[in-house]
Amino acid sequence: MSKTATFYHAGCSVCIAAENNLATAIDTSRYNVESVHLGNDQSRIAEAESAGVKSVPALVIDGEAFHINFGASLSDLK
Amino acid sequence: MSKTATFYHAGCSVCIAAENNLATAIDTSRYNVESVHLGNDQSRIAEAESAGVKSVPALVIDGEAFHINFGASLSDLK
Repeated sequence: MSKTATFYHAGCSVCIAAENNLATAIDTSRYNVESVHLGNDQSRIAEAESAGVKSVPALVIDGEAFHINFGASLSDLK
Repeated sequence: MSKTATFYHAGCSVCIAAENNLATAIDTSRYNVESVHLGNDQSRIAEAESAGVKSVPALVIDGEAFHINFGASLSDLK
């Protein structure tokens, strides 16, 4: 059964670099990778927050949040 | 030709979580993944620094540094 990797971002330059280089490096034969633009889809902010995300870009893998560099804080997206 | 993904860390709890969940999620059919413990191998600190690494854990993919959460700053490892 595939694991889940959710890439939360907001379309910033830091986010795009992380998506193009890190999120795309994930093994899609073992992980379902989903990219969520929290600026466009604000309904997913609460979900990201409950997974422990405090800034974007961030990858949540199996429920654990990994913040990648710093693009924007989650509170700036609300 | 495989790309390179170098995971720099120092064995801290943040480092271990990032290695076990994120570094291991990378597609090894497309990337050569190397794990470097900068606490044990201080000779590689300069290399990490020149790749733009400022704290660990960090993944350098194709020469671009992605800091993952925050375990320790590179200067603390010198």
